[in-house]
Amino acid sequence: MDQKRHRIRELGFAPGHFEPGLLNAITDVAGVRVGHVTCHEGERTRTGATAILPHGGNLFQDKVPAGFAVLNGFGKFAGSTQIVELGEIETPIVLTNTLAVGRGIEAIIRHTLAQPGNDKVVSINAVVGETNDSRLNDIRAARPSVDEISLAIDSAASGLVEEGGVGAGTGTVAFGLKGGIGTSSRLVPVGGETYRLGVLVQSNYGGHLIVAGRDYARLAEHDKDGSIVIVLATDAPLCSRNLERLARRCFGGLARTGAALSNGSGDYALAFSTAEAVRRTPERRKGVSAVPSLGNDAVSPLFEAAIEATEEAILNSLAMATETRGFNAATGKGSTVSAISLPHAAHR
Amino acid sequence: MDQKRHRIRELGFAPGHFEPGLLNAITDVAGVRVGHVTCHEGERTRTGATAILPHGGNLFQDKVPAGFAVLNGFGKFAGSTQIVELGEIETPIVLTNTLAVGRGIEAIIRHTLAQPGNDKVVSINAVVGETNDSRLNDIRAARPSVDEISLAIDSAASGLVEEGGVGAGTGTVAFGLKGGIGTSSRLVPVGGETYRLGVLVQSNYGGHLIVAGRDYARLAEHDKDGSIVIVLATDAPLCSRNLERLARRCFGGLARTGAALSNGSGDYALAFSTAEAVRRTPERRKGVSAVPSLGNDAVSPLFEAAIEATEEAILNSLAMATETRGFNAATGKGSTVSAISLPHAAHR
Amino acid sequence: MDQKRHRIRELGFAPGHFEPGLLNAITDVAGVRVGHVTCHEGERTRTGATAILPHGGNLFQDKVPAGFAVLNGFGKFAGSTQIVELGEIETPIVLTNTLAVGRGIEAIIRHTLAQPGNDKVVSINAVVGETNDSRLNDIRAARPSVDEISLAIDSAASGLVEEGGVGAGTGTVAFGLKGGIGTSSRLVPVGGETYRLGVLVQSNYGGHLIVAGRDYARLAEHDKDGSIVIVLATDAPLCSRNLERLARRCFGGLARTGAALSNGSGDYALAFSTAEAVRRTPERRKGVSAVPSLGNDAVSPLFEAAIEATEEAILNSLAMATETRGFNAATGKGSTVSAISLPHAAHR
Amino acid sequence: MDQKRHRIRELGFAPGHFEPGLLNAITDVAGVRVGHVTCHEGERTRTGATAILPHGGNLFQDKVPAGFAVLNGFGKFAGSTQIVELGEIETPIVLTNTLAVGRGIEAIIRHTLAQPGNDKVVSINAVVGETNDSRLNDIRAARPSVDEISLAIDSAASGLVEEGGVGAGTGTVAFGLKGGIGTSSRLVPVGGETYRLGVLVQSNYGGHLIVAGRDYARLAEHDKDGSIVIVLATDAPLCSRNLERLARRCFGGLARTGAALSNGSGDYALAFSTAEAVRRTPERRKGVSAVPSLGNDAVSPLFEAAIEATEEAILNSLAMATETRGFNAATGKGSTVSAISLPHAAHR
Repeated sequence: MDQKRHRIRELGFAPGHFEPGLLNAITDVAGVRVGHVTCHEGERTRTGATAILPHGGNLFQDKVPAGFAVLNGFGKFAGSTQIVELGEIETPIVLTNTLAVGRGIEAIIRHTLAQPGNDKVVSINAVVGETNDSRLNDIRAARPSVDEISLAIDSAASGLVEEGGVGAGTGTVAFGLKGGIGTSSRLVPVGGETYRLGVLVQSNYGGHLIVAGRDYARLAEHDKDGSIVIVLATDAPLCSRNLERLARRCFGGLARTGAALSNGSGDYALAFSTAEAVRRTPERRKGVSAVPSLGNDAVSPLFEAAIEATEEAILNSLAMATETRGFNAATGKGSTVSAISLPHAAHR
Repeated sequence: MDQKRHRIRELGFAPGHFEPGLLNAITDVAGVRVGHVTCHEGERTRTGATAILPHGGNLFQDKVPAGFAVLNGFGKFAGSTQIVELGEIETPIVLTNTLAVGRGIEAIIRHTLAQPGNDKVVSINAVVGETNDSRLNDIRAARPSVDEISLAIDSAASGLVEEGGVGAGTGTVAFGLKGGIGTSSRLVPVGGETYRLGVLVQSNYGGHLIVAGRDYARLAEHDKDGSIVIVLATDAPLCSRNLERLARRCFGGLARTGAALSNGSGDYALAFSTAEAVRRTPERRKGVSAVPSLGNDAVSPLFEAAIEATEEAILNSLAMATETRGFNAATGKGSTVSAISLPHAAHR
Repeated sequence: MDQKRHRIRELGFAPGHFEPGLLNAITDVAGVRVGHVTCHEGERTRTGATAILPHGGNLFQDKVPAGFAVLNGFGKFAGSTQIVELGEIETPIVLTNTLAVGRGIEAIIRHTLAQPGNDKVVSINAVVGETNDSRLNDIRAARPSVDEISLAIDSAASGLVEEGGVGAGTGTVAFGLKGGIGTSSRLVPVGGETYRLGVLVQSNYGGHLIVAGRDYARLAEHDKDGSIVIVLATDAPLCSRNLERLARRCFGGLARTGAALSNGSGDYALAFSTAEAVRRTPERRKGVSAVPSLGNDAVSPLFEAAIEATEEAILNSLAMATETRGFNAATGKGSTVSAISLPHAAHR
Repeated sequence: MDQKRHRIRELGFAPGHFEPGLLNAITDVAGVRVGHVTCHEGERTRTGATAILPHGGNLFQDKVPAGFAVLNGFGKFAGSTQIVELGEIETPIVLTNTLAVGRGIEAIIRHTLAQPGNDKVVSINAVVGETNDSRLNDIRAARPSVDEISLAIDSAASGLVEEGGVGAGTGTVAFGLKGGIGTSSRLVPVGGETYRLGVLVQSNYGGHLIVAGRDYARLAEHDKDGSIVIVLATDAPLCSRNLERLARRCFGGLARTGAALSNGSGDYALAFSTAEAVRRTPERRKGVSAVPSLGNDAVSPLFEAAIEATEEAILNSLAMATETRGFNAATGKGSTVSAISLPHAAHR
């Protein structure tokens, strides 16, 4: 079987109306870094972690405004109440598997305590999202370890983002097909400016897959449970309230793919702004500062871009994943999950 | 121009996988009543009200469990905090225009105070949803009146539901095309039972319309602002928490139609259960009662049906509406909004 | 009976540690205006309305950032979802009785449509709070009327605020004693600045009253149901998220008075900033503007002041109210509610 | 210095009006188990963990309905979104320090995976609350370990609950005084039944302490930041919505103690029902079951009891704590925190 994979746009389907950025990836938003650790060992370990860093400096000292949204909360997302209360994040964002959230928190805390300038830090709000990769991974076996997750954080870099069955997407399954990590971006004109907006997803949910209006439900036995974590970055100067609204729009892209939004799904979205002027430095947190902010009447193009970029990121996660054999932790048996087969534009 | 209209299913597009009920309407849920008052007068009045009654008895005495959800809260929905707190509704639900919410509350209060058995009632939580019909209606002119809205409540009946530019949908516009009232239903097998679930919408929002995967953005200048109110009824025995979750799923159907989810949209969903055994009678409210309730692990088919029925109800609101000439209150000029033109299945 | 009344501070109890403003009233926050209409007629009408205007200009054009909080949502507060979504208010705030909310909305809409500069306005988010005065008022008789409520808006003025059984507090009852309108303010040093913060309440709830640590439960048969609406103004430059947090703190003052927080209570708080630089003018809403904002680490003194000022405003509403005879709408009989009797400091 | 300590009730102050249970502890609710691990070593380790088990069976298989509330979300509470979504908890509740949440999750997961009957379990929603004990503890040093937290779970037992500077309260500070673990309970007559309601707190917050109306602000330099986690158990048959409302009432008790509700506080409350008939067994989760539920109109006495029991539990945490010398992690120096000194009733 030929496992050469193509992104959905190369296959001829480009969701929405805005142009993508240069890489069509979350890293088109300047400063954002992504790192993967992939644990693919023997017959039973198909898991990993993916770290997203909003900028390359000291995140704890220079926090970024953020918004958080839940569509269905059957999940273990860590750090949510403080994000909502303070409207900010202060650590790398780690995605991993359902039973590794505690280890993700440990890795983030170790990373933050060890950074220069943080020697007096005694409170850290670690942000960890997860989906359940137990259909291909022996999730009960406590991988990735804290040290492995630390590797994802430490290796985070700008530039191309590997997609499909890597990092936190190593063992995930979407619509009964191999899912994983996917990303996409948009260039969004607002007033005289063009802002960048990028999305990265860890896809592991179900429903009746719709691609370009075609129902792919019959490609595989449908499998409706599961989850998705969506991370959105933008360089638009937004307050935490409008970032929360932006995060909520990601679920529009999720719905367009045919998600069943079932009881067992953990559907989370997190949006942050990388604009330097909205960064929450120690000085700004203590007093009055003039924070540039896009008004309510100007945000709609960003909202629509969030829908489009999420749909495309999800489809990329499927399009770039390859057939994977692993271990089903609930049944205790080996298990194979196919990759999606989409017609190439050239063949249409 | 031939204004004979067809529902979307007759045109060959049937969203989703569950079967519709007999009428494919919210009134397939036994007991639910719908009434319209249509104010279509002269050149400037294109408005009205639609009332939905969960059952034909005394709603204040025999309240129904309910859940409420907001996707974007740029709207004036009345009654929401009490629905959320107590998990119930105690009045008819009225839909009308943005500046008529106060009159909708008055009409509901008069109705409730006047009902036999309510002579000691001193607190009433009126539930009123709205969208803004000012693109076709002189909304500043204070129509419908309280008395007109009362007619919608008083005329509510079981059976066929008129769709398109009637009642609260008389002057609404969706995707730059004539929208209005639409409805749909599903039969949902759960365990050994088959439950009914019905949706009614007042469509007045925008985006790039998608029907059966085809992008209709070019049919009309796109118009992205606006709102939608979605009312869902089911005879499944659900607690208020699971009704709130069900209400949230309606937004999945909204997203599938290509909604832009813009800043200016007021997107609300309200779900209630008509099951007699979950009705909150005076006796049950005061003490301990055994309330039948569908467990979390059993609700997913209803969730998926909510997505499908909402998508179909929206498309029915467009498919059944006809070209309308009216008055644009913001510009002070006459205005014509076209009906959607969809290819009939027979022609494909 | 001597009905000469004293504010709680004159009686020797000054809750908290910050200094009050000049009037010890919400109007110490420059620009804030308050108006009352009192309907005290015959034996059965004991009701009214109170309007609070954040500034004296065109509120619809120059909106103010705002935050909203609910402790127990058994109430009919109008306008909440849009306040939360957009983080702002655009109309006067009206307080009235439970069955007059629709008329309050109508009065606000008429006021807004009629203001110079608003001739194209087609969407208005009216903000109306209420409590239930049916223990002294024939609430089913539809007073105050729309025109009466308009008088409260039109008469709103700076300066002294009348307290006790006036305006929206004409017929309210707290702890089984006569409640009503009360107000208080604080001067709050933050960094090098001193901000003003004022609170106005409509008290109508119950519990076991605590004043200065003394339990007044035995003064009257305890009566635990009922509601409170709390409005907070400040000239500190706060974003809507921090205004929401500030609103939430008001419930700390409520709890300190011995509130029972019962099922039947509608406990709402609304906070807004009057700072000119955070005002949302048409220009700012459409683009990027630099909004001064107090950082998270600087807001705690304001939070504590909100607790204190709320406690004092509530106690003022009781201290300034006088014995009232009226009509109990639920029983259909006449009813007398006593004023609180507190020892004067001079007597201690 | 005499460190013989007395509970607040023995000192003559009994908040509220309901009677306490036999032990005046959360364990008065039959089935509830509490376990502590205390890490008090050398000069720098003053921390620990406290585990609360809603019942003695397999919590993952027989989940309990639960409600969750946040007053100020500057905290790292784990598991909240799933509690809210599904209205239930499925693991022990662990309280510990801010930087130990990840290890708390690990300990809960290990415990759950190892229980008989859970060999196919692949998803676990660990519930961990925390406050920051860094004023007495070298919190950066990664104690308690996973194994230590496991000891708290494994040692959980019915009966007397140790209070003050033990378990998760070993290093906590409240109002600048030594805080820690405190508990209290109430017997609550509702209809013909008497329900039990118990509260356990981990106190670590600040403000101006009020005990029996007397302001203790001058006893120690006031210290306003910090947090509290409140766990409430009841045997009343409540649905998750009413448990959430009950959790929210705990903040009434918090406010009455003089809490400043500052920016830096993480104030969380979690309430669950132990009633066997509302337990969510595998059978009930999959189908329709008749769940006994106390109606909205009957819950107010429980709400008031939650306020009282929380106030008393907090005061017990202070009254039972003793002067503690430790290490301030932010300053890197040794630190001593005094115990509260309250006049004994016999001396008044």
